[in-house]
Amino acid sequence: MANRYFLADLPAPGRHALPEDLAHHLGRVLRARVGDAVRLGDGRGGTAQATVAVIDRRGCFVDVTDVAHEPPPPCALTLAFAVPRLQRVEWLLEHGTEVGVASFQPIWTHRTRPTEARADRWDRIVAAAAGQCDRAWLPTVQPGCELADLLAQAALPANRFVARADGDAPAPAAPGTALLLVGPEGGFTAEELAGIDRAGCRGIRLGRHVLRTETAALIGAAVLLLS
Amino acid sequence: MANRYFLADLPAPGRHALPEDLAHHLGRVLRARVGDAVRLGDGRGGTAQATVAVIDRRGCFVDVTDVAHEPPPPCALTLAFAVPRLQRVEWLLEHGTEVGVASFQPIWTHRTRPTEARADRWDRIVAAAAGQCDRAWLPTVQPGCELADLLAQAALPANRFVARADGDAPAPAAPGTALLLVGPEGGFTAEELAGIDRAGCRGIRLGRHVLRTETAALIGAAVLLLS
Repeated sequence: MANRYFLADLPAPGRHALPEDLAHHLGRVLRARVGDAVRLGDGRGGTAQATVAVIDRRGCFVDVTDVAHEPPPPCALTLAFAVPRLQRVEWLLEHGTEVGVASFQPIWTHRTRPTEARADRWDRIVAAAAGQCDRAWLPTVQPGCELADLLAQAALPANRFVARADGDAPAPAAPGTALLLVGPEGGFTAEELAGIDRAGCRGIRLGRHVLRTETAALIGAAVLLLS
Repeated sequence: MANRYFLADLPAPGRHALPEDLAHHLGRVLRARVGDAVRLGDGRGGTAQATVAVIDRRGCFVDVTDVAHEPPPPCALTLAFAVPRLQRVEWLLEHGTEVGVASFQPIWTHRTRPTEARADRWDRIVAAAAGQCDRAWLPTVQPGCELADLLAQAALPANRFVARADGDAPAPAAPGTALLLVGPEGGFTAEELAGIDRAGCRGIRLGRHVLRTETAALIGAAVLLLS
């Protein structure tokens, strides 16, 4: 059983019917019973503690006993990564959610091609992982974009990093918004790196080995977010 | 093409036949050609730079031009982890190799059961990942053991850590030998934690979310090894 299930809106205290898909999942897949505790979230910091009151073929009702809100985490990290093959994107979404990435930004670079967006599937993976690790704030998955278009955005996060072999040892990011850029296998091109430099990204070095894109992305995010 | 291939013994400068399986892989799978560069390692710090001299149906010969040795990394980390399901063990082996784990130690705890060892398959995964990320020192995969038996070993690594929610913020491990213990979903039991405390393991905290075993193991290893 996951630690948290997400609803579009947080229910108030009292009895509520759960949406059909969640009712089905609890009843048929997890075989939940009357009296089982369920935690519901809106993905925007809200948490409702609830208990299964009725569960049968027609649906599931829960009694919400307590509602609370928590502030967002101190550092909102956008993880911008050159898209590896899709299976590896999925594990990055899953594990990046666990370590606390706020926003996933697939990027296309000289050495990677645009891939088909899988918005629905990726959103589901992120929600499942956030439920598993009991995150009150759901991360977002942005549509893919060109690296140059990302760097040209007016509202880039305040603290900007790029994973590179000649960078400094990383340290936790300061509170606020942060961006971590991770290049493809083979790295960013010299031209791309020049643009990244101009955008004020500080190089961080993630160990001594050649890392796959998704490993570098996960570890870099974890190090910046550990506090 | 991987960045490095492992042989039992490092060849001296001169012409050498490659073992049949590697010759087949280079010729049939990767379609290597005469003149292609190949890096060979013994997994114990030795590296031979070579060039394909002959490649045909009967095998592959390379000319070794240069042989070098590098010292082991400053921190030899043993990553001891409660065994999750096997697919997740495999990804931990793959990515733990990339971040520089020296030794993988599967452990059985109160909340995990002994699983069948997959020594051959796990060794192959580690060698493939080490080749991909160009590691000169191959990690080892130890046979699984009970947590209590591990802690009772006379020669435990000098610096000992355990991932736990109430630990301190982690920092890179000092040079020498180190051990990181990572418990199962649901955590170590109080009795197990008491034994871990008695063994002198310092608690480190890996962020604010509930991490899967293999995510905690990978991130904990990365943080201890980053320098």
